[in-house]
Amino acid sequence: MSKLMIIGAGGVGNVVAHKCAQLPEVFSEIVLASRTESKCKAIAAQLQQTIRTAQIDADIVPQLTELLKEEQPDLVINVALPYQDLTIMDAALIAGVHYLDTANYEPLDTAKFEYRWQWEYQQRFFDAGLTALLGSGFDPGATNIFTAYLAKHYFDEIHELDIIDVNGGDHGHPFATNFNPEINIREVSAACRHWENGEFVTTPAMSKRARYTCPDDVGTFNIYRMYHEELESLSKHFPSLRRAQFWMSFSDQYLKYLEVLKNVGMTGIEPLEFQGQSVVPVQFLAHLLPDPSTLGSRTEGKTCIGCIVRGTKDGNEKLMCLYSICDHQACYREVKSQAISYTTGVAAMIGAKMILEGKWRKPGVWNVEQCDPDSFMEDMNRYGLPWKIVELDPAFHLEIIPS
Amino acid sequence: MSKLMIIGAGGVGNVVAHKCAQLPEVFSEIVLASRTESKCKAIAAQLQQTIRTAQIDADIVPQLTELLKEEQPDLVINVALPYQDLTIMDAALIAGVHYLDTANYEPLDTAKFEYRWQWEYQQRFFDAGLTALLGSGFDPGATNIFTAYLAKHYFDEIHELDIIDVNGGDHGHPFATNFNPEINIREVSAACRHWENGEFVTTPAMSKRARYTCPDDVGTFNIYRMYHEELESLSKHFPSLRRAQFWMSFSDQYLKYLEVLKNVGMTGIEPLEFQGQSVVPVQFLAHLLPDPSTLGSRTEGKTCIGCIVRGTKDGNEKLMCLYSICDHQACYREVKSQAISYTTGVAAMIGAKMILEGKWRKPGVWNVEQCDPDSFMEDMNRYGLPWKIVELDPAFHLEIIPS
Repeated sequence: MSKLMIIGAGGVGNVVAHKCAQLPEVFSEIVLASRTESKCKAIAAQLQQTIRTAQIDADIVPQLTELLKEEQPDLVINVALPYQDLTIMDAALIAGVHYLDTANYEPLDTAKFEYRWQWEYQQRFFDAGLTALLGSGFDPGATNIFTAYLAKHYFDEIHELDIIDVNGGDHGHPFATNFNPEINIREVSAACRHWENGEFVTTPAMSKRARYTCPDDVGTFNIYRMYHEELESLSKHFPSLRRAQFWMSFSDQYLKYLEVLKNVGMTGIEPLEFQGQSVVPVQFLAHLLPDPSTLGSRTEGKTCIGCIVRGTKDGNEKLMCLYSICDHQACYREVKSQAISYTTGVAAMIGAKMILEGKWRKPGVWNVEQCDPDSFMEDMNRYGLPWKIVELDPAFHLEIIPS
Repeated sequence: MSKLMIIGAGGVGNVVAHKCAQLPEVFSEIVLASRTESKCKAIAAQLQQTIRTAQIDADIVPQLTELLKEEQPDLVINVALPYQDLTIMDAALIAGVHYLDTANYEPLDTAKFEYRWQWEYQQRFFDAGLTALLGSGFDPGATNIFTAYLAKHYFDEIHELDIIDVNGGDHGHPFATNFNPEINIREVSAACRHWENGEFVTTPAMSKRARYTCPDDVGTFNIYRMYHEELESLSKHFPSLRRAQFWMSFSDQYLKYLEVLKNVGMTGIEPLEFQGQSVVPVQFLAHLLPDPSTLGSRTEGKTCIGCIVRGTKDGNEKLMCLYSICDHQACYREVKSQAISYTTGVAAMIGAKMILEGKWRKPGVWNVEQCDPDSFMEDMNRYGLPWKIVELDPAFHLEIIPS
């Protein structure tokens, strides 16, 4: 019997609220808070169970602290913007509340996310006897746990990791981004970094691609190597890794749009002086694009996200794949969200459950792969994110497309 | 010995000022006026001859009238925005000044240009004993005069007209528009209209294209049928025309950018509410794109603009082509502008010369094809727009690319 506060009422916040409200034996009381309380009320109105809502500006620590002290939840789930991780962590520390998020901190004015800022809270959360669980979404999140699960049960030592994130969904718009477009575009425009022989190697954005056929008839896609935040924590926590790469699928159409919008300056994050006003180009672009929250009802197809791990077991080379497939329309029927928000939100709910049930409650700041993966993996099968493990021929390699 | 006022200090205004200043025997005194007087001063500083500058808001008739009355020029050349044609015509009437422009009036809030608004000034200019010469740029302008010249000297009757505007220039930017980007984009996004059997036929924008090889090694290009304002006046003034079409070249890259920018809503002309401000998307796009005035120094290649006319002479079918080729870098060396502004500005200067020398001075509102073309054509050869006439095999037809 625990009280939960969720901050953020976007696509992921919607899923977290739906899934947590389905488990009153764990989350007996829920408060959903956002800058725009009407969005919280709209979500609350869809639920069978009663939850409360609140208005909060997650940029302002004193406001956050006051709300957390007043409500005294056991745990706060942060599914607001990544810019707001630190303010919510500060407030959780002051108010004495456990903390969970799904994406690491990124300063508002530089497209550079890293765990450093949040890892620096380690001593303070430890001293306060509070748990801060970082990156408990799908990727990062489930992908870290997949890696930990394979390392624990199938290998003596893991050497190579390829995380593959395929979205085979089609929303029918010429161009739209699946979640906050500003973050989406910043992610894709950033230079690629991958882990190789003890250091991060930087290559131009989207410069390495492969052709990948997903299991279970999801389809064949072009996937592009890019930086993704779990590479930072996984390369640290699995020091035996000689190489770790992250790949994401993008359609030719999506990339064409992105190239044009970037080249004309529409993805810029610096404010420009325009007709005596200050306008941030990417924010104006986001304003023009379809609201990601409207994509759910029209998106068809599946996501397939998983990890391919190469390593050794009993002296032999071994290659394993652990993946989860999610159907956009099935997600929409259940929680009125497409699979991108669904996979993230369900994993956040399970992470919260792990903390509140005491399984992952330990003072300090932790990435999910530092916790025992087994209970989380069991809950994935139970709450909508079923997964499969297959052993691959060690001769298998991703089919790189020459550039 | 005449006094001239030029309103507008963009790319075309720059060329008009340069070319008129080279002819003090015709334009003995020149005033260059613009909303931003510093742009006028920057142009004036480039000239060997002394011209004066002034500040004017061309949207405001009383301000225009006051300036024209104070300066008492013989003629005002309007190379401001097409939105400002009527205010400048109003002021010219009040102040008793002849008028010339290069592009017809278009209301600010609808992408619909037509001569109706300006033709309605016919009686007023006639009564005032003043000449208003409309569309004396290159296209419209030289293209109308080419048609009139061919009709006068080579045909008994003309039946088909294809105006072809090829810009083979390359400025090296991924995307930029050659003049005011807002007008450029409005033009290309508009539905196509062409004249056929006594009426305008509307087809979707950019839906008909042809492959065209320019004369004199300018190159081979994809040209697209589109509406262009000279079709309205030419179909009226040459009633024997059974078909009149306008074609413009666009690169695949340009069209890709335009498709994307249009589909995401960046070419919209309606103001949007954004963060409590009012933003017109296409104006913000124009703000992001390279300033057209900076393209000149980096543009290489040639333009080739001309008319192919089919008709009869002495009972036989006949096909004639009259065209002019202009080199971007040669234009830049002469007047610090690329060929798009150059061809328009030189034609405006020659039209002004025709009025001031009395050759085209007749009370009323006139399109250039209503005046005798011979003197204008002679001056084109003299002042930087040399042209050629070739007879084509009547079996020649534009090579349409199936869609």
